Amino acid sequence: MVITLITDFGVRDAYVGSMKGVILGINPNIQIVDISHEVEPGDVQKAAFLLLTSYPFFPKGTVHIVVVDPGVGSERKILCVRTRSAFFIAPDNGCLSPLLRTERSHKVRELKNQVFFRRRVRPTFHGRDKIASVAAHLAGQRVFCRIGPPVRSWKSSVFAQPLLKAERITGEILHVDRFGNLVTNIQESHLRRYEGRPRDVKVGSRIISSWIRCYSEGVKGQLALLINSAGYVEISTFLSSAAHLSRAKVGTPVTLKW
Amino acid sequence: MVITLITDFGVRDAYVGSMKGVILGINPNIQIVDISHEVEPGDVQKAAFLLLTSYPFFPKGTVHIVVVDPGVGSERKILCVRTRSAFFIAPDNGCLSPLLRTERSHKVRELKNQVFFRRRVRPTFHGRDKIASVAAHLAGQRVFCRIGPPVRSWKSSVFAQPLLKAERITGEILHVDRFGNLVTNIQESHLRRYEGRPRDVKVGSRIISSWIRCYSEGVKGQLALLINSAGYVEISTFLSSAAHLSRAKVGTPVTLKW
Amino acid sequence: MVITLITDFGVRDAYVGSMKGVILGINPNIQIVDISHEVEPGDVQKAAFLLLTSYPFFPKGTVHIVVVDPGVGSERKILCVRTRSAFFIAPDNGCLSPLLRTERSHKVRELKNQVFFRRRVRPTFHGRDKIASVAAHLAGQRVFCRIGPPVRSWKSSVFAQPLLKAERITGEILHVDRFGNLVTNIQESHLRRYEGRPRDVKVGSRIISSWIRCYSEGVKGQLALLINSAGYVEISTFLSSAAHLSRAKVGTPVTLKW
Repeated sequence: MVITLITDFGVRDAYVGSMKGVILGINPNIQIVDISHEVEPGDVQKAAFLLLTSYPFFPKGTVHIVVVDPGVGSERKILCVRTRSAFFIAPDNGCLSPLLRTERSHKVRELKNQVFFRRRVRPTFHGRDKIASVAAHLAGQRVFCRIGPPVRSWKSSVFAQPLLKAERITGEILHVDRFGNLVTNIQESHLRRYEGRPRDVKVGSRIISSWIRCYSEGVKGQLALLINSAGYVEISTFLSSAAHLSRAKVGTPVTLKW
Repeated sequence: MVITLITDFGVRDAYVGSMKGVILGINPNIQIVDISHEVEPGDVQKAAFLLLTSYPFFPKGTVHIVVVDPGVGSERKILCVRTRSAFFIAPDNGCLSPLLRTERSHKVRELKNQVFFRRRVRPTFHGRDKIASVAAHLAGQRVFCRIGPPVRSWKSSVFAQPLLKAERITGEILHVDRFGNLVTNIQESHLRRYEGRPRDVKVGSRIISSWIRCYSEGVKGQLALLINSAGYVEISTFLSSAAHLSRAKVGTPVTLKW
Repeated sequence: MVITLITDFGVRDAYVGSMKGVILGINPNIQIVDISHEVEPGDVQKAAFLLLTSYPFFPKGTVHIVVVDPGVGSERKILCVRTRSAFFIAPDNGCLSPLLRTERSHKVRELKNQVFFRRRVRPTFHGRDKIASVAAHLAGQRVFCRIGPPVRSWKSSVFAQPLLKAERITGEILHVDRFGNLVTNIQESHLRRYEGRPRDVKVGSRIISSWIRCYSEGVKGQLALLINSAGYVEISTFLSSAAHLSRAKVGTPVTLKW
């Protein structure tokens, strides 16, 4: 059984370690995988993006945890989603809404049943005392129906869907990766609704028209477009940073014209 | 069986990986959990703090390793502590002394028996050649009594205990976390000896009087006090850094007055 | 079964997590150990160094993965090396060549057999879709002979071997570790060919003549030489950074004279 973790806790404090202790205390055979703890504090959009681009690669039954939770201890709900292949637990602050749009066949419940929490729940660390504990019980046991009542609505906000018009898609930069590649919110599946490749692509004030298949087909110092390994349109430049070269960043508009 | 790691090795070098290789070579079923490797080189107090705030969340029998060890290769001892619930291994430089004050029922031995070391011990890396090796043998085997002779005294230095007077506690900032929260060395259990909440709290030259239960009860731009998830008095400010706002840092005095 | 990972992916993105998902989907019992993901993008020499100094500490049968791969998707090969004790998988860009010089008894094959790849191979992420997948199959199964054809030549470039003359060794700084220690490319085994310790050692324009056994034998503010925990000649200074003190860095020449 696998549990994955996405948090904004960083790696200098003992917060992530404490969550792992709770998980292994309940089930010592669980494999825990860190996706990233370097989400900027409170950056719900980044957490949603990391989740979307990693969960498809995990085995059936994996429990994916997202803890980016400035509202911890308040009346905000904690959601648990079951899809055909996995479980997802996160505070109801929008970070699961892109996933819920993608995985149409899902059930959603609220974490409520204290049987699955730690005996003492601290109001400042539900990630440890509620979420990690429930996740460890979910991994390998059929307890989803007992964790709390069904939920029919949730916060929906995180990242803008691209706008698809007759001969144009308008989107934006979602993420800048370690290499300076600019990942847009436009997916391969969106492009399939149009005929051929877009004539040109505008990122901020730059126009790009070269499409490549892999990074090494690019030319150093020139921006190029590709479909990245998670299926998103991405702007890159060979052996250096497309973010530096283009001065684009998260939120910069991207327009594709046919 | 679980082994946890706290070191000042960072994550750019292969030091932590090598320790894990040694552990898994002795017992491939051990679950290894990183608490943090981002302790500043030689910062024994930080290591002690991370240990104190993480070990209570791990299952019985866990072996906790701390390697912050500028004296490696010298005549300093390496200590192994057994309490009712766990083992702790660290150089005798003070980093286990706060734990030994907290866990009164303990046995302490010195790592001496070479049977449990790697065949070749390098004088610059006892963390790998002695500590990781002994830890892997301790996890799940009853070998504590054989690792070396009992020890009756140890270095005691790390972090000042708060001073408890009639209507006043004087303590200090122990740790600034990733979010800029200021964790003091004053614990919930200290406050219980007084009646009611302190009238006011001074951090450096700032006076704070608002107590909250969780971060989101705070007001952005105002400092507030709470009991954090590890049971310590903490100064925070909602959605930003209390450290920036207050200009307090590790060592800044904190006074609570009733 | 253990798989280790060295990449230049960092820990902000979901790339490393996705590789782990693929591995655990094939074999949920594998122990995955991060050596480092903080290799600078494309720094093949650093990856080779981290591999060389960590693999000897892992149990027999471990599969070591290196993904520093700016040429991903191009015609460059992916190599798999089997030695008497372990497997190694990496793109053919020189990062395995120091290992192949060290481990003379080896077999090398090219990753070709799609049976061991993910069904869909993205041209921008062979680390996930080819390497992680093959590694998971290799860990614990006898499939090495089936992964692809034997390879007789490979890219050889990464780090200069030291030059051994009658009374002099000329080498260079390979790596600066977290503590500022300067690790050279000169090994203990090279020194054994000479009589006694070198009379003096020049690092850049500084002359060092003090040899110590462990860091705490050094004097703060003075550079000293030692054999480090991986068997390399290293320049250190007690409780501070030899890199700062000497202004040496990766590539700075080092000369030992007898």
